[in-house]
Amino acid sequence: MGFWKSLFSGTDAPSTTSATAPERIAVEGSGDRANSRVFFSTEREIDLYELEELCDAVGWSRRPLRKVKKAIQHSFLVVSMWEQRGMQRRLVGFARATSDHAFNATIWDVVVHPEFQGKGMGKALMRFMIKKLRGEDISNITLFADPQVVNFYRTLGFMPDPEGIKGMFWYPD
Amino acid sequence: MGFWKSLFSGTDAPSTTSATAPERIAVEGSGDRANSRVFFSTEREIDLYELEELCDAVGWSRRPLRKVKKAIQHSFLVVSMWEQRGMQRRLVGFARATSDHAFNATIWDVVVHPEFQGKGMGKALMRFMIKKLRGEDISNITLFADPQVVNFYRTLGFMPDPEGIKGMFWYPD
Repeated sequence: MGFWKSLFSGTDAPSTTSATAPERIAVEGSGDRANSRVFFSTEREIDLYELEELCDAVGWSRRPLRKVKKAIQHSFLVVSMWEQRGMQRRLVGFARATSDHAFNATIWDVVVHPEFQGKGMGKALMRFMIKKLRGEDISNITLFADPQVVNFYRTLGFMPDPEGIKGMFWYPD
Repeated sequence: MGFWKSLFSGTDAPSTTSATAPERIAVEGSGDRANSRVFFSTEREIDLYELEELCDAVGWSRRPLRKVKKAIQHSFLVVSMWEQRGMQRRLVGFARATSDHAFNATIWDVVVHPEFQGKGMGKALMRFMIKKLRGEDISNITLFADPQVVNFYRTLGFMPDPEGIKGMFWYPD
């Protein structure tokens, strides 16, 4: 876990980086493929077709790219995870958060390519999200977890229904 | 319930109003006090001290006004509820929502002055929020409900943990 330490040891230090300022951080030692490395980016200029391909790989329903583009534009934080091999880079993970820029953030659309699952990459992506949000002085980080990933988020410090608080969704009658 | 009908009959009609465009809608027949009427506004120019007074009235912890101002600025939708008596108006309710402007919205800080609770005003405020969000083509409206208000939101069409989806909050170790 040494490489996480180097990434996250500064979690509590005050950040001068805006969540909207693009940034790249390499995940050292993350590649178990030859000549590859994985890094995070907060740049929003993501090829929407490449993102769609990633979402297809995990079996998500397709969404209009026009709306996906708008959602990315209006998210507070967008994090993508890339595998770099030589000059080629490939989108292997994604997550974004909405926020009021002051108190609350909600994380949506967390996706890790199946080939990169089970290697701690999803956790690294989430820890990077948390670090960025905490660096922006957001105290309340929330999400809505499907049943099969509740334990994944629990290991990252997320609590379901704390003090009986219920996540609720509105459905038209 | 005739006055709700006049307010909400247009729920499914396409809205041409931006969630950020200020708007005032009177709640007809809502006053049980002489010479008073209640209306909603989407204007963001709310006196922060008046909002603090409203939140004090329901026993919320005080928050830095600088951050409250920032949160209001960066909310997708801000709705305030006012009682008008002659030339005087008084803030009696408030709610806001964060959003990615495309798929998801999350409602925060729903507050109704104790004198106006139990009269259907909180429901009217929430129905107004839902109508505005639906008018902006937001399909997923979410919130985090304290245990004592879960049933209140249920009557408005909000479901807790649909299909096992869990609301989760991050807490630092």
